[in-house]
Amino acid sequence: MERKAAIIGGGVIGGGWAARFLLNGWNVSVFDPDPEAARKIGEVLANARAALPALSDIPMLAEGTLTMADTITEAVEGAEYIQESVSERLELKHRVFAQIQQSCPETLIGSSTSGFKPSELQQNAANPAMIFVAHPFNPVYLLPLAEVVPSPASDLAAIERAKEILREIGMFPLHVRKEIDAHIADRFLEAVWREALWLVKDGIATTEEIDEAIRMGFGLRWGQMGLFETYRVAGGEAGMKHFMAQFGPCLQWPWTKLTDVPEFTDELVDLIAGQSDEQSGAYTIRELERIRDSNLVGFLRALKDRDWGAGKVLREHDERRRTGFADGTHEISAAPMVMAQMQVLPSWIDYNGHMTESRYLFASSETVDAFLRFIGADMEYVAGGHSYYTAESHIMHRGEAKLGDHLTGTLQVLFADEKRLHVFISIKKGGQDVATVEQMLLHVDMKAGRACNAPKAILDRLLPIAAAHADLPRPKAVGRATGQRG
Amino acid sequence: MERKAAIIGGGVIGGGWAARFLLNGWNVSVFDPDPEAARKIGEVLANARAALPALSDIPMLAEGTLTMADTITEAVEGAEYIQESVSERLELKHRVFAQIQQSCPETLIGSSTSGFKPSELQQNAANPAMIFVAHPFNPVYLLPLAEVVPSPASDLAAIERAKEILREIGMFPLHVRKEIDAHIADRFLEAVWREALWLVKDGIATTEEIDEAIRMGFGLRWGQMGLFETYRVAGGEAGMKHFMAQFGPCLQWPWTKLTDVPEFTDELVDLIAGQSDEQSGAYTIRELERIRDSNLVGFLRALKDRDWGAGKVLREHDERRRTGFADGTHEISAAPMVMAQMQVLPSWIDYNGHMTESRYLFASSETVDAFLRFIGADMEYVAGGHSYYTAESHIMHRGEAKLGDHLTGTLQVLFADEKRLHVFISIKKGGQDVATVEQMLLHVDMKAGRACNAPKAILDRLLPIAAAHADLPRPKAVGRATGQRG
Repeated sequence: MERKAAIIGGGVIGGGWAARFLLNGWNVSVFDPDPEAARKIGEVLANARAALPALSDIPMLAEGTLTMADTITEAVEGAEYIQESVSERLELKHRVFAQIQQSCPETLIGSSTSGFKPSELQQNAANPAMIFVAHPFNPVYLLPLAEVVPSPASDLAAIERAKEILREIGMFPLHVRKEIDAHIADRFLEAVWREALWLVKDGIATTEEIDEAIRMGFGLRWGQMGLFETYRVAGGEAGMKHFMAQFGPCLQWPWTKLTDVPEFTDELVDLIAGQSDEQSGAYTIRELERIRDSNLVGFLRALKDRDWGAGKVLREHDERRRTGFADGTHEISAAPMVMAQMQVLPSWIDYNGHMTESRYLFASSETVDAFLRFIGADMEYVAGGHSYYTAESHIMHRGEAKLGDHLTGTLQVLFADEKRLHVFISIKKGGQDVATVEQMLLHVDMKAGRACNAPKAILDRLLPIAAAHADLPRPKAVGRATGQRG
Repeated sequence: MERKAAIIGGGVIGGGWAARFLLNGWNVSVFDPDPEAARKIGEVLANARAALPALSDIPMLAEGTLTMADTITEAVEGAEYIQESVSERLELKHRVFAQIQQSCPETLIGSSTSGFKPSELQQNAANPAMIFVAHPFNPVYLLPLAEVVPSPASDLAAIERAKEILREIGMFPLHVRKEIDAHIADRFLEAVWREALWLVKDGIATTEEIDEAIRMGFGLRWGQMGLFETYRVAGGEAGMKHFMAQFGPCLQWPWTKLTDVPEFTDELVDLIAGQSDEQSGAYTIRELERIRDSNLVGFLRALKDRDWGAGKVLREHDERRRTGFADGTHEISAAPMVMAQMQVLPSWIDYNGHMTESRYLFASSETVDAFLRFIGADMEYVAGGHSYYTAESHIMHRGEAKLGDHLTGTLQVLFADEKRLHVFISIKKGGQDVATVEQMLLHVDMKAGRACNAPKAILDRLLPIAAAHADLPRPKAVGRATGQRG
C-alpha cells in the first residue's frame, strides 16, 4: 500500500523528516517556497542514505518518491500524515494550519515546534483536535526521539495513530502528558545553553572547553542512561534516597547565574562565533555532519548490539519490518536487496593495504547469511537440523576495497524452487561493484546428509522474493565460466 | 620504575581513581577508616578490570599493588601523587590536607571536590601551592574527563606535572583557567538537575520519561560533539551567527523555573525514589553498573575507531604506552601479554550456537597480529617487503565459546632469535582457556620468498620480551603432538 506524508517547510528539520519517511518507504511531498529547498533536502537525504541503512539488519523498504509541491494544498492532498516545520512564528504556523485544514481537516498534523504549546498552535484552527506537537531532534533521520504533545483539545485516538506512524518510521514517540513551554528535552537544552553563555561571557571557558567538559564526561553517560538512572547507579548500594540526601542540599548553594539572563549583545555573539570558528573551523559543515552521523551510527550500533536504550528502538524497528515482509504488509521490491553493511577493518587488510581475497567471500557470506535469516532459515532453524549449504560459488573481482571503506552487500534471487536457491551477490563500494559472487545453495537435511525440500514456512517467504526478482535484468556475470572472454 | 599514588577516601570515586592508577601500573595505597572500604574498592576494581582493557590495543601495564593504609601518613609515604576523595565537607578536607602536608608538603594533592574552589581548599594549608582540584566523573576508570582547577596561589609547574600524570593514566585533563563554584561540567549538571526536579514535582514527566528525553536524543549528540559544535552543525551553511540570531531571543522567554529552587521535601524525595524504583528496579546496582560500563565501552570503541573526541584520548593513551614499551620506560612484565579483546559475534557461531572451529584460529591470529604490530612488524613494515609468516600451528580445544562471550587473547614468547619466533597463544573466557595455539613463525623476505634475519629495530623490541618471558612456566600443551596422551 502506498503511503504519503506531507512535509511543510523543507529546512534541516523538514528535510530530516522527509528523509526518514522516504527511507521507510513512504512517498513524500514537500512544500517550501524557498527556491533552494530542493537542493537542501537533497543534501539531507544524501546524508540519511549514507547513515540510516547502516543501522538496519533487515532490508530497507523500497525508497518512496519525493515530490516538491507548488502549494500547501497540493502537498497535503492524499497525505496520511502532515508534519509542519516552518519558522518559529506562531502567526505563520496558524496560517499554514488554516490552509491545510481547508482541504484536509481530518488529517494528522504534527508540528516540529520547539517552543509553542499545542494549545497555542490550535488557536482558531478549523479542527484543533488534529493539531499536536511532534518535536524531533536533529539529525531527524538518526535520533529516535519525537516528543508528542497533545493539548486537552486533542483527539487522543488521533494521537495514538500518530505515535504508531512515528514508530513505523523508526522513532521513539515520547508522550508528554501535560503541555508546557518547550516540552521536556528543550528545557534542559535551554538551561545548559544559558549557563554556557555565562561561562563564555565571563571568560571562564571557551566554546571548545565547554564542549570537552560535556563530551569527555557526562555526555557519554547521557547517551545510554539518562539523568536519574545515572545518579541511581552513582548512589551505589545505598540507593536513590541516599544519593538525593547527599546532593539535595547543594540546590541551596548560591552558585548559579541561571537567575539572570545574559544580554545577547553583538559582542557576545562575536565572541562565541569566533571561538567556534577556532574550535571547528577546520571542517566544513558538510564534513561535520558526516562525522556526527558516523559517530551516531557507532553509538547506535553499540546500543543495538547490547539491546539497550535507543538500540532497543532499532531492534523493534527491524522486527516490525521483518514481520511486515513476512505477512505481506511490505512488498518485496523488484530490486536486489541490501542485506549487509560492512566496514573494512584493519584485520581485513593485506600487506598492500587492500582487502584480502578471502574477505570478499566473507562479505558475500555475511550478505547471504542475513538473507537466509530473513527468509526464516535462522540459527534456530538450523539447530533443528536443516540448513542451506553452498554448493558452488563463482567470484569476480571488480575493484579494490581499502581500510575504512564502507561496503554494501546486495542479493538478487536468480531462481528458487523447493530445493535450490540460485543467488547473485554484489559487494559494492559507493555504488560500484568491488566483487560479485554467483552462488548455488541447496536446502539440506543435515542429519541425513542430503538435499531435501524446504518447508512451506521458508518457501512462503522465499518464493515471493524470487517472483519479485524474476524480471530483474540478469547480471552479465551470471553463468560465466572462469576465464571466459567478454 | 615503581610509582605510587595515594588515595584518601575509598568510596565510588576514590575506588575509581584507585582502579585507574592500578590498571595503569601504579602502586596504590588507600586510606579510608570505613571497615567496608576494602570490599567496596574491590568491587569497583572488578568492574574496571572487566571494562578498561577492552579499550586498549596495546598491552596493559602489569597491574600495580593495592594496599590499605592504617593512617593518612602511611598512605602518602613515598607517593608521587595524592588524590583526596572524602565527603564534601570543607573542614574535613582541610584536616586531611593538614595531615598530608605534615609529612609530604611538596607532593601534588588533587581533590575530587565537585563544589569547592581550590582557593577554599587551600585555606590555612601549610603549602597551598600544591593543592588543586582534579574533578573526575563516575565511572572514573572509564570516563576521560578530569577538570583541573588551580587558584592564583597554585604552583603552575606542579599543575602541569599533575596534568601529565593524569594523561599517563589515560585521562583528559581540562585546565579550568578561572576558579568558579562547581567548575564547568557540574554547572550544567546542576542546571539540568534543578529543571528535572521541577518537571517531576509538577507532574510533567516521570524520571523514566526524563531519561528517555535525554538518551533518545541530545544525550547521543553530546557524547561525541558537545553543545556548541552540535549547534554549529545545526545552524547549517549559514553558520554559528545565524544559529544564535535564531535562538538567542528565546533566552528572553519566560519559560524556565530555574529562578526558583524547588523545596527539597520528603514528599519530593519519595516521589523521585519511587519513580526511579519503577524505572530501574528490575536491575540491581551491580547489574546497572555492568550495563553502563558495557555501553560506555561500546561508545568509546566507536569513537576510537573514528579517532574522534574521547576516542582520540584512547589512541593517544595507546601510543604513549607503545612508545614507553619501545624506549624501555615500561618494563615488559614476566607474564603472557594480553594482546586482544574480542567478543563472539553472531557471524562467529555455528548451527549449535557455538563458536565455529576456524574462529578459534581467527582469534589467535588477531592476538598474534596485535603482537606483531606491537614489535614493529606492522602494516607499513610489511608493505616494505618483509613479514612474519606462520610455518606451523597446533591448536588445542579446551572449552566452548558462545554468542556474546568476551574473549581475551594472550601471547607468551617461548623462544625468539633473528629468524624464528615461537609463541604460545591462549584464548580465554573469564580466565579459563577455551583454546590454545602453539605457533612457529619465520621472518621472511617476501620478494625473495625465503626466511631472513629480522632487522635490529624489530629485534630490539622482540628480544627483551623473549627475555622477560624466558622464566615463565612452559605451558603443558607446548611441544605436544596431535593425539599425544596426557
